[in-house]
Amino acid sequence: MRKVAIVGTGLTKWGVRGATYKELVQEAGKDLFDDVPNLDKPEVDSLFVGSALVDRLAFQAYPAPIVAEQLGLKPSRMAMRTEMACVSGQSAIRVAYASIVSGLSDVAVVVGAEKMNLPSMAEVQSSMACVLDREWDGVNGLNAPPYFALVAQRHMHEYGTTEEQMAEVSVKNHDHAATNPYAHFPKRVTKEKVLGSTRIAPPLKLLDCSGITDGAAAVLMTHGDAAKRFTDTPVFIEGLGQAQSGSLVVNLESLTTWLPLKRAAADAFKMAGVTVHDMDLAETHDCFTISEIMEYEDLGLCGKGEGGTYVTEGQSRIGGELPTNLRGGLLGCGHPLGATGVAQAIEVTRQFRAQVPQERYVGGDWGLCHNLSGNANNHAVMVLHRGG
Amino acid sequence: MRKVAIVGTGLTKWGVRGATYKELVQEAGKDLFDDVPNLDKPEVDSLFVGSALVDRLAFQAYPAPIVAEQLGLKPSRMAMRTEMACVSGQSAIRVAYASIVSGLSDVAVVVGAEKMNLPSMAEVQSSMACVLDREWDGVNGLNAPPYFALVAQRHMHEYGTTEEQMAEVSVKNHDHAATNPYAHFPKRVTKEKVLGSTRIAPPLKLLDCSGITDGAAAVLMTHGDAAKRFTDTPVFIEGLGQAQSGSLVVNLESLTTWLPLKRAAADAFKMAGVTVHDMDLAETHDCFTISEIMEYEDLGLCGKGEGGTYVTEGQSRIGGELPTNLRGGLLGCGHPLGATGVAQAIEVTRQFRAQVPQERYVGGDWGLCHNLSGNANNHAVMVLHRGG
Repeated sequence: MRKVAIVGTGLTKWGVRGATYKELVQEAGKDLFDDVPNLDKPEVDSLFVGSALVDRLAFQAYPAPIVAEQLGLKPSRMAMRTEMACVSGQSAIRVAYASIVSGLSDVAVVVGAEKMNLPSMAEVQSSMACVLDREWDGVNGLNAPPYFALVAQRHMHEYGTTEEQMAEVSVKNHDHAATNPYAHFPKRVTKEKVLGSTRIAPPLKLLDCSGITDGAAAVLMTHGDAAKRFTDTPVFIEGLGQAQSGSLVVNLESLTTWLPLKRAAADAFKMAGVTVHDMDLAETHDCFTISEIMEYEDLGLCGKGEGGTYVTEGQSRIGGELPTNLRGGLLGCGHPLGATGVAQAIEVTRQFRAQVPQERYVGGDWGLCHNLSGNANNHAVMVLHRGG
Repeated sequence: MRKVAIVGTGLTKWGVRGATYKELVQEAGKDLFDDVPNLDKPEVDSLFVGSALVDRLAFQAYPAPIVAEQLGLKPSRMAMRTEMACVSGQSAIRVAYASIVSGLSDVAVVVGAEKMNLPSMAEVQSSMACVLDREWDGVNGLNAPPYFALVAQRHMHEYGTTEEQMAEVSVKNHDHAATNPYAHFPKRVTKEKVLGSTRIAPPLKLLDCSGITDGAAAVLMTHGDAAKRFTDTPVFIEGLGQAQSGSLVVNLESLTTWLPLKRAAADAFKMAGVTVHDMDLAETHDCFTISEIMEYEDLGLCGKGEGGTYVTEGQSRIGGELPTNLRGGLLGCGHPLGATGVAQAIEVTRQFRAQVPQERYVGGDWGLCHNLSGNANNHAVMVLHRGG
């Protein structure tokens, strides 16, 4: 079977951008093409676009041809958009992987992009509520912050997790974001500032939540034999896992243990022939601070209920057991839904290539990317390995 | 490399349905599960959902978990929605193919579904206009009927194609639809009725256009070794091709020759090791009558400009060179965008299994499915082969 590598990366500045969806895509594309000077655009036979809410927030269905045209590409073998809410970006990478392994593609561009900010934030919120089952959970107000607040309350009740521990996740990820010129929120925050920030859905406060962010990210992917044409340090996708648990909140198996994450991680590590303890760095889906705490636990980095201690001990900081969310995570970078999964893969790739500022450089050989979507009913895990 | 087969099929009645998106999905799922009594639902490790406008017309993003829950599935390895406008359904099949070949999936359910009819047809039309580049073509009124009217006008100008010839496509496909209880428009029409129907965008009249239809379709797919557990007649995907030409109408290479169709078909036939003349039946994308005429030409069934004669000679009828759109096509069945590509594959499968009414039974060993999307800037071709 063919091996598949990420061989080039491109990013936009993330934030509240005075830019359209098309402009964001073009900006990420330029950054990507600058990174792969050996690429001849007609070689790109496939294009996969991860976008969650482009129909509603950019008023545009069928974005794949538009992205192709913005980038000057004419995909001759595969083209589509993938949508899986907050897993849309990693889904695009997964389809590129499967297409390359199966021989349907040789050279693929993957773009994750989202234009989130509109003049009317009410419109944005109403569109975001479509991500949960609109007729049941959405209509009852269970969009993301209230749902993750339930999770946090239950986790606090069961395991004694505290708001201070959650705040530490935000402090850490903002520390990392301060080293990242692409981040939406590149400013350090104190624990006191997190704890004192505006209440959103108790116990979650503003700085426990990822932001509404515009941004795009792009990678070039190809098979192992071709990878060295584009880079001395291809980053191979060695493990992939994804699992699901229900759809409605009432049908989830547990609020405080993400069983689909456990299953997805087990599959991804088995496929790669490694364990979580072999990882040198991780990008996990910190849509809310409580999420990252549960991810430490359900990835097996600590026992159940010990995620709060894990972060306060500094285990997820540089120098700790597994430096996590080095680009700043969703909390520090913001969360343009479809772009997030692609940007996580870019952080791992740039770390392996020593293309990040020294302050957050960790490098290593093995990295993990994790996304969850909706009410955490679906989790996707990807294990990356430094080649070269 | 693994072979991949379609091993089960399910359909809803298509039409203006008093049913929600969820109900349509459930109905197609029941029909599918009835067709594969040997399936144990937990075996289904993957789910791919082809939907184009679910965000706007069913007010629901992230449909994959909802579809899973409606069907009683918990996909343990892969789940996502694919979107490529009118190629969304075939895109879902393509991703299932790639996932199975690459080993990411073993047993996949593919669902194509679209709820198109809303109380306000103005809302539907405004959403449909999002399929073309909204800022350029959409805002200038170039949604589907006006665009395909331009194509028809130019084809008439260059090749002498007539409105009568186009009407023959509608007559043929309605003849086929009359044998199909799942069709939206299962009624024969005369050439005079087509020619006298309401003008939509000259030269296209109402009966030259596919309808606004609610519907769903589902297939079960697995690898060659497992296929015989579910059916004596697996239908193997032997060829896949897809190609693109620009996005905006001004950037298409030609109005009257679909170069991406020629490229996609060449790739699919090469992969399958056959030619168009080996096909026993074809499902092509007759979104408008002119489309099917151009498809005869660009698939190489007749010379350029001879598509009108091809249909009036009866070459695309049963007994002709290549019986085309036997279920009634988009003209006779309607066009619930994401469902169409899946339903085409179902027609070929049911033909190979002799599960269609005798009046339209053709059977055979090789079948072709074709979809185009947007302003025909993207074309996808799939070649299917009868196993067993």
